[in-house]
Amino acid sequence: MDNRPIGFLDSGVGGLTVVRELMRQLPYEEIIYIGDSARAPYGPRPAQQIRTYTWQLVDFLLTKNVKMIVIACNTATAVVWEEIKEKLDIPVLGVILPGASAAIKSTEAGRIGVIGTPMTVKSDIYRHKIQALSPEMDVTSLACPKFAPLVESNQLNSSLTKKVVYETLQSLTGQVDTLILGCTHYPLLKPIIQNVMGPQVKLIDSGAECVRDISVLLNYFEINRSRDKQELRHRFYTTASAKSFADIAKVWLNRQVDVEHVTL
Amino acid sequence: MDNRPIGFLDSGVGGLTVVRELMRQLPYEEIIYIGDSARAPYGPRPAQQIRTYTWQLVDFLLTKNVKMIVIACNTATAVVWEEIKEKLDIPVLGVILPGASAAIKSTEAGRIGVIGTPMTVKSDIYRHKIQALSPEMDVTSLACPKFAPLVESNQLNSSLTKKVVYETLQSLTGQVDTLILGCTHYPLLKPIIQNVMGPQVKLIDSGAECVRDISVLLNYFEINRSRDKQELRHRFYTTASAKSFADIAKVWLNRQVDVEHVTL
Repeated sequence: MDNRPIGFLDSGVGGLTVVRELMRQLPYEEIIYIGDSARAPYGPRPAQQIRTYTWQLVDFLLTKNVKMIVIACNTATAVVWEEIKEKLDIPVLGVILPGASAAIKSTEAGRIGVIGTPMTVKSDIYRHKIQALSPEMDVTSLACPKFAPLVESNQLNSSLTKKVVYETLQSLTGQVDTLILGCTHYPLLKPIIQNVMGPQVKLIDSGAECVRDISVLLNYFEINRSRDKQELRHRFYTTASAKSFADIAKVWLNRQVDVEHVTL
Repeated sequence: MDNRPIGFLDSGVGGLTVVRELMRQLPYEEIIYIGDSARAPYGPRPAQQIRTYTWQLVDFLLTKNVKMIVIACNTATAVVWEEIKEKLDIPVLGVILPGASAAIKSTEAGRIGVIGTPMTVKSDIYRHKIQALSPEMDVTSLACPKFAPLVESNQLNSSLTKKVVYETLQSLTGQVDTLILGCTHYPLLKPIIQNVMGPQVKLIDSGAECVRDISVLLNYFEINRSRDKQELRHRFYTTASAKSFADIAKVWLNRQVDVEHVTL
């Protein structure tokens, strides 16, 4: 048993898609979240900068005495997950392996698509992880640089967003039977993405898949939170506007949350 | 990537129920199995003896250069899992936490039954683990000392077995909505147990649940086997008759396996 909170980090609000799934599957765990919206998106930035920023978020979470860190950001996972996991003595999870693993189980034709930020796609990490497990898989990756900024600005269902998603994904339609949403912002656009790709394409939410792994690791390391009556006190932090973050969180988590602005 | 085999140990043939599930979910992993049928069942033995025997099985698996050890035996898990996990520098899984966790998710009325060997029931470990996670759960445990010997003697569907299962489980029927098969031998009696308990009772196969955890930990520790064309060479060892073991394995795994007799 370990009643300390689980720490989540993301370049912005995308990691809330992982938090929502955690609240559903593991409602008794307490959450500390830090989103770096002031510097989002991370996707187009150079790797060294992503590394520095991500370590700042990790260090912030460590001051909050977390028992586990979830890098709820594909870009940061691609660049620096292994390094962080190696250096810390608490479990550190990324979102890429759970997504890759779920896609392999899901695909029937062996044709997997991956959409992500420019950095995630450039790193080619999904192809690398998928083909290491299953060499015969065909993996097609596509950078969607406009998606995360649309989500950060809370345009989840605007006609502009629909147009951008439609135009961006054209080259993938009909090419894959499984599509990895390789950025935690993208599940916020899931209905539009599903509509463009067609109902037969299975969308893999890398963040949701990651929560199943969180559950197993809480068991394995014996650090579940006791389900007593003690009230949970989730805490959310952002490097940008607390109000904007709270607005998106309210819609996405279907609850009011306290958000505090911080400077790193 | 790590192409070494996964090691399984059990007091006898019961762990084959975990192996069957592994072959289904992770067909590209290679298996080394050791069953201590000569000294089965472990359930009625004193804890110190179970501890000694289990360490002998672990040491045997370590000589085979395994990358992970699965204690596919509830009794051994109850007595010595934490100690083995602490001492080895490879991941060590037991079958109890995955089963406890799955039962909590499954139950609607909060009334969970556990059947197991005398030692597993005496240790009260399922109640302990379940109530640590979820204090309000009602847990009823029942020792079934006759079940494992019936399975070891390959009486999976005899009229004696039906009679024994019926008589043993009488006190549980109508009392629980979820029943943990807290001994890896018991899934071999699943149709009979389900028949006695009634179709509305959800049976939790602790071994099958454990395989989901194996998959997550292979990912987390990055020790999956590469899915290349290299042929798998599963190896099974028993301290009793190789022929008896092979007979049960053939029925249960639906394939011919090579079994070698060993003396520990």
